[in-house]
Amino acid sequence: MSETSVLVLDADPPPRLDRLEGRARVLHADAKSLAERLPEADVLLVWDFLSDAVREAWPGGGARPRWVHTPSAGVDRLLPELAGSDVVLTNARGVFDQPIAEYVAGLVVAMAKDFFGSRELQRQRRWKHRETMRVGGTRAVVVGSGPIGRKTGRTLQALGVEVDLVGRTERDGDPDFGRVHGGAALHGLLGGADWVVCVAPLTEATRGMFDAAAFARMKPGARFINVGRGQHVVEDDLVEALLEHRIAGAALDVFAAEPLPVESRLWDVPGLVLSPHMSGDTVGWRDDLATQFLDNFDRWYAGEPLLNVVDKQLGYVPGG
Amino acid sequence: MSETSVLVLDADPPPRLDRLEGRARVLHADAKSLAERLPEADVLLVWDFLSDAVREAWPGGGARPRWVHTPSAGVDRLLPELAGSDVVLTNARGVFDQPIAEYVAGLVVAMAKDFFGSRELQRQRRWKHRETMRVGGTRAVVVGSGPIGRKTGRTLQALGVEVDLVGRTERDGDPDFGRVHGGAALHGLLGGADWVVCVAPLTEATRGMFDAAAFARMKPGARFINVGRGQHVVEDDLVEALLEHRIAGAALDVFAAEPLPVESRLWDVPGLVLSPHMSGDTVGWRDDLATQFLDNFDRWYAGEPLLNVVDKQLGYVPGG
Repeated sequence: MSETSVLVLDADPPPRLDRLEGRARVLHADAKSLAERLPEADVLLVWDFLSDAVREAWPGGGARPRWVHTPSAGVDRLLPELAGSDVVLTNARGVFDQPIAEYVAGLVVAMAKDFFGSRELQRQRRWKHRETMRVGGTRAVVVGSGPIGRKTGRTLQALGVEVDLVGRTERDGDPDFGRVHGGAALHGLLGGADWVVCVAPLTEATRGMFDAAAFARMKPGARFINVGRGQHVVEDDLVEALLEHRIAGAALDVFAAEPLPVESRLWDVPGLVLSPHMSGDTVGWRDDLATQFLDNFDRWYAGEPLLNVVDKQLGYVPGG
Repeated sequence: MSETSVLVLDADPPPRLDRLEGRARVLHADAKSLAERLPEADVLLVWDFLSDAVREAWPGGGARPRWVHTPSAGVDRLLPELAGSDVVLTNARGVFDQPIAEYVAGLVVAMAKDFFGSRELQRQRRWKHRETMRVGGTRAVVVGSGPIGRKTGRTLQALGVEVDLVGRTERDGDPDFGRVHGGAALHGLLGGADWVVCVAPLTEATRGMFDAAAFARMKPGARFINVGRGQHVVEDDLVEALLEHRIAGAALDVFAAEPLPVESRLWDVPGLVLSPHMSGDTVGWRDDLATQFLDNFDRWYAGEPLLNVVDKQLGYVPGG
């Protein structure tokens, strides 16, 4: 096998790719130089996975890499441009399951127990006992039946929450959830949920799915959590639902525009808890992501099938 | 059986005791009148379980109730005064297990993921991505091997935490925790813990157990959570440990003095999260507590053995 060229779309800090030594030549590009360098690459590592540069450069002229890896769970920043070619696209399936499941479980308890209210009272030096919500026995609808959604659902189950998992297509006999509901069932499930959690991939089927109609289905006591993509939510509709007390609260880790502009109205909507797209990003995550790519490179180099191959039509890695 | 007199040490709101009708005469007392009314009572329901009135009135003259029920897990406000008599003392074992376990699990995630830091950044309209702590794979020492401690430990295990449970006496072969460590092992375990959680009953053996010597054993990255009793902690030693960064953070739901005085230095120690003794108090908790008493009254009235009988020497309900 001739030396492979691995092109890295750089982000800071860079990935540790020492393991490639002797097997691959590592090239670097930024958003500007990407289009020019793409034809030289056998493999593209989209280390700057928050960039739209690949989508913009891909339709240009010349040869294209045969394999593109994005160290993210979502591949929405690469589609539909890559879908038309025969490139193999892989993602970071698996790395974020546990951290995001923990994060969502923590948000559920934090909202149930009014941790943020207690924090504000602490600032004011006020002792004010309240009765809070018992999490055990509540119901959650988790939208997204991939590994992150499944792990999130199982973690909520461990807290005593009844979980309805919603995927693209309905199926029965799931070992953890019994029935996995299809997307068409979502609106019917929302009315019974204390927690509505979005961990879905962003596809044309899921874009904007949390809109005024969806929020109108939810209970006044319901709380909404989005750790998927900002574009899953019609943000103005969520703000209205919160301001009119049609739902009790929400937590967003992702936004239509990131970083969230300082002038956004989202920052100070009552009942809305924000964090800066970090639910999956635990200490060492970049090393985990680099290692996952390198492990897959070993397979590539040995001529073995790659892991975590995305179905570019569906927009995620299919199965289990 | 002649009509039983049930004396209620009142608190607001009062308990719903309709089920006693026809079987018991319900008398009421407040802290002032308690001593005078005690001799009339067969049963004392310490509805105001935060009061020290029973401890103060008990040593006085006249007959004493044969059964005292406190709708709390801890019985420290009744001992040692009741320990010298042959009164049967029962508590609210069981009611608080799930809520407190949820609360502790939520605090663990909230601190791991810096929810409170994100909230402050939200107030400032600042987008600041951080890497946070993965909860799965961390280690916790949970002090207290009663039902609340066990449920807390199992809930943390469900989040992927390795849990060392510490009780009064060492025992092996526990189905959930393998070895339950004895109190003497505590200091040896603290150095390995990311989380140190106190859910112990307050006894002479546990009073002040979290002191400078204990905090000195913990890692700089360790966080301490107290949902037991304020007197488990030497609060000044905790403040020093936090100010000198000998541990990374703490959350207190209970305090040596409650309500926490407005002038307390605890309110604004960096890294210290406070809440007003509410970890177990979920909506409907007072009804649950009244029902638990009434169920036990049914047994009393039928001449059956009571449930949740406290060992007044140990200071808690022994076993399991």
